[in-house]
Amino acid sequence: MRTNSSKHITLTSHPTGDQKPVAVEWGSSDPKKRGPVVATPAGSGDRNAIGSYSGSYAVYRALAVAAGTLDPLHKPDLTNTAPAIQIGPYPQWDDPTKIVSIDPWGHVVGQVFSDHIKQGTDVRPTIAVTRARLSVPEFFSGTEGRHLLPDGRVLMETGEVNVTKIAIEPVWYLPGIAARFNTDEHSLRRSLFEQTGGMFSELVTRPDIHIFLPPIGGITVYIFGDFEGIIDPARELSCRVHDECNGSDVFGSDICTCRPYLVYGIEDAIETAQKGGAGLIIYNRKEGRALGEVTKFLVYNARKRQEGGDTAEHYFERTECVAGVQDMRFQELMPDVLNWLGVTRIDRFISMSNMKYDAIVGQGIKIVHRIAIPEDSIPSDAKVEMEAKKAAGYFTDGDVPSEDDLKETHGRSLEEY
Amino acid sequence: MRTNSSKHITLTSHPTGDQKPVAVEWGSSDPKKRGPVVATPAGSGDRNAIGSYSGSYAVYRALAVAAGTLDPLHKPDLTNTAPAIQIGPYPQWDDPTKIVSIDPWGHVVGQVFSDHIKQGTDVRPTIAVTRARLSVPEFFSGTEGRHLLPDGRVLMETGEVNVTKIAIEPVWYLPGIAARFNTDEHSLRRSLFEQTGGMFSELVTRPDIHIFLPPIGGITVYIFGDFEGIIDPARELSCRVHDECNGSDVFGSDICTCRPYLVYGIEDAIETAQKGGAGLIIYNRKEGRALGEVTKFLVYNARKRQEGGDTAEHYFERTECVAGVQDMRFQELMPDVLNWLGVTRIDRFISMSNMKYDAIVGQGIKIVHRIAIPEDSIPSDAKVEMEAKKAAGYFTDGDVPSEDDLKETHGRSLEEY
Repeated sequence: MRTNSSKHITLTSHPTGDQKPVAVEWGSSDPKKRGPVVATPAGSGDRNAIGSYSGSYAVYRALAVAAGTLDPLHKPDLTNTAPAIQIGPYPQWDDPTKIVSIDPWGHVVGQVFSDHIKQGTDVRPTIAVTRARLSVPEFFSGTEGRHLLPDGRVLMETGEVNVTKIAIEPVWYLPGIAARFNTDEHSLRRSLFEQTGGMFSELVTRPDIHIFLPPIGGITVYIFGDFEGIIDPARELSCRVHDECNGSDVFGSDICTCRPYLVYGIEDAIETAQKGGAGLIIYNRKEGRALGEVTKFLVYNARKRQEGGDTAEHYFERTECVAGVQDMRFQELMPDVLNWLGVTRIDRFISMSNMKYDAIVGQGIKIVHRIAIPEDSIPSDAKVEMEAKKAAGYFTDGDVPSEDDLKETHGRSLEEY
Repeated sequence: MRTNSSKHITLTSHPTGDQKPVAVEWGSSDPKKRGPVVATPAGSGDRNAIGSYSGSYAVYRALAVAAGTLDPLHKPDLTNTAPAIQIGPYPQWDDPTKIVSIDPWGHVVGQVFSDHIKQGTDVRPTIAVTRARLSVPEFFSGTEGRHLLPDGRVLMETGEVNVTKIAIEPVWYLPGIAARFNTDEHSLRRSLFEQTGGMFSELVTRPDIHIFLPPIGGITVYIFGDFEGIIDPARELSCRVHDECNGSDVFGSDICTCRPYLVYGIEDAIETAQKGGAGLIIYNRKEGRALGEVTKFLVYNARKRQEGGDTAEHYFERTECVAGVQDMRFQELMPDVLNWLGVTRIDRFISMSNMKYDAIVGQGIKIVHRIAIPEDSIPSDAKVEMEAKKAAGYFTDGDVPSEDDLKETHGRSLEEY
C-alpha cells in the first residue's frame, strides 16, 4: 500500500508558500471561470475549500486508512458514474446569491472539470443522479394511495413507482451563507469554529478560502414523472419539502405526522405526474429539527412528564428549555435546491410550515396552492404537535385553535405505553 | 442576549495554563472516578473531550448563534428528561476495552454527575431513553406480519407496537478505538485529522485528551417487550443490527434488501417478545456502507452502465473503484451497544452479514441461531446484491452461488426504468 506519510503533520491552519488553491469564482456561468471545488482529503496545496468531500463520512475514511484497508492516496474512478439525466445549467446558477449551500456543478465535475482531473487534481462529485424503483408499503395497505391507478410509466402494474433520485452534499459559499443569515462572514466563521468545539481552524485562519464543506447531512431529491415537468411553466408541479425524522419516516412512531406527510406528498407527486405534470420530494437530513435525536428524545420525556401532561399549550416551550431554541432547521438555505433544479413555481406545496413557505417565496419562487395533510391521516399522539403548530402560525385550511383548545389537546404520558 | 465574545479567538489547539480538564478514568465502575465527559461548545477550560455534544448538529447550533437566535451560553434544562427506564450499570461497563465508542453513563449524567452540573460544568447527555408507539405500514398490508396477533402489551389491537427507544451519540475513547483497529493511538489521531481535511487540530496537538466526539451519525435502539428480557439468560432474545439505508428504509427502493430485512427483524422482535422473550433493533446511521449517499448513487450508475450490465459477479468491484474499499462500516465498534445493554447472548440473529456476526462473537457475545430473510421478501432488483454477498461469505441456509450463477444474476439497466 502506498502512503502519504511524512514525519511532519501540517496543521493546515495557516497558508504557506507552496499552497496554490485552485481559483474559484462563485456564481460564474462559465465553469472554466467558476473552477472546481477542491476538498481532497489528502491535504494537497490545490485545496480551495475547508472541510472534505463526503462530509461526516470522512471520519470513516480516516478509520479505513488507520486500519490499513484504504490507500490514503486513492482517487475515485468516475467511469460510468455521470448523472442519469441532464440537469442545468439554469439562469439561477449564475447568481452568486441564489445558490449558496450547493455546488451547482457538483454532479458534472467529471465532464466540466475534466482538464483539472487529467492534470491530477482530485475533484470529486458532491452530487449524484441515478434512477430507482420504489415500493411504498402504504400503497399496498389500502389505507393510502387507494385511488392511484397504474399507468405503466410513473406507477407500474406491480405498484412500484419510477423515480429519478439525486443525492446532494452541502457545499457552503461562506459570504453567501452569512448574507442569508444577515450576519457578516467573520462572525459566521467564528461561530462555526467556536460552537463546534474547534472544528476546522481554517475557518478562522484562512479568510482567503471562502468555501466550506460542513460535515452535516445532505439532501436527497426524488423526481416523479419526467424532469422537464419540473421547469415547464405550462405543467403542474407538486412538491413536498421534508425534514428527516427517522422515528416516524422509518419506524412509524405516532407522536408526529412526518411519515404520513411524506407518503401524502409521494401520493400527490405521483398523481400530478400522471396528469402530465411532475412531482418533487426534497428530503433534508436534519433529524429532530436539526437538534439531533438525543435532544429530541430528551424533549419527548420532558413533554410527557411535565405537570399537567403533554399539551399543545407547552409544546414549543419544552424544546426551548432543553435546546435553547424551538427549532434549528433554518429553512433559509433550503430553497437553494429548488433554484438548482430550475424551479420557478410550485403549484401544489404539500406542507403546513410557514417557515418553509416564507423561505421559498422569499427566494422569488411562486407557491400557488398550500396543501395540508387530511385530518384522518394524523396519528393519535400527534394531535399535540399539530394544534400547537397551527396556533403558532403554521398553515391550516381549518380553524386556528384557541388557547383553551391548546390546553385541552393532550398526548400520552410515559406511563400509558 | 448574553454573549461570550471576546476579541481573542482561542484556537484550542494547544493547552494553556488556565485549562483544567475534568479528570476522566475510562472504564471505572465508580462514576465519581470515571468523571463526566465534558464537550461543551463554549470552549471553557474544563472540557476533557475533543469535539462537541450533538456531533454534526453543532454546525446548526453555530448557525443559530451566528443568526442571533441562540444564546451561546445556553445550558440545557434537564428537568424531566431522565431515562424512561433504568439501564445498567452492568459488568461490561467496568472494562475499558469492552465499550470504547459510547459513554456508558451518557444517559444518566443528570443523576450521577449532578455535583459537577451544580458547580457549573456544562455536562450534557449523549444518550436519551424514551417510549414510543409504532405503526409499521407493512403490518397493515397483508404482505408482512400476517401471522402476528395482538396481545395488548407488545402489539395493540390497533396494530400499533409498544417500544422503548434509545438515541445514542458516539463518544470515542481513542486508545480503545485504536486497539480495536490494531493500530496505535498516534496513527489513528493523525488519520482522523488528515483524512477529514483538518477537522479538530486538537487530535494532533492534545495527546493528553483521549476522548473524541466525532461528528458522525449515532445509533437508535428499539426494544420490544420488557427490558429485562434482553439480559435474562432464561429468556429468548431476537436481534437485528441494521445499517441505515434511506433509499430503502424510507422510500422502499428495490435495489437492496434493507427495508425488507428491517421489517422482518421487527416482526421477529415482536414475536419473540410475545413469547416471553425480547426483541432488539439496533439502527446505525451509516448511510451507504458509511460511504454516504452521493458515493452510493455514483456506484449504482457505474454498476448499471458497465459492460455486460449490472451483475452479481462485479457487484463489489464497482464500489471499490469509486470508493477505494468495498465497505467502510467497520463493524468492529458495533458490539459496544450490545455490551452497554448488558447483552451476553442473542438467540435469533436476523442478519446474513458475516462481518456483523464476526464482530459480535469476537466481543464474546454468543449467537445461537443466524436467520436470513425469506427468499420471497427479496425485491426484484436486489438479487444482484444478495447473490454477490452469499458468494463473498455472507450467511445463507441455501446454496452458495457459483461463478456462473454470479454472471447470470442481472439487475436492471439505467434505460429500463
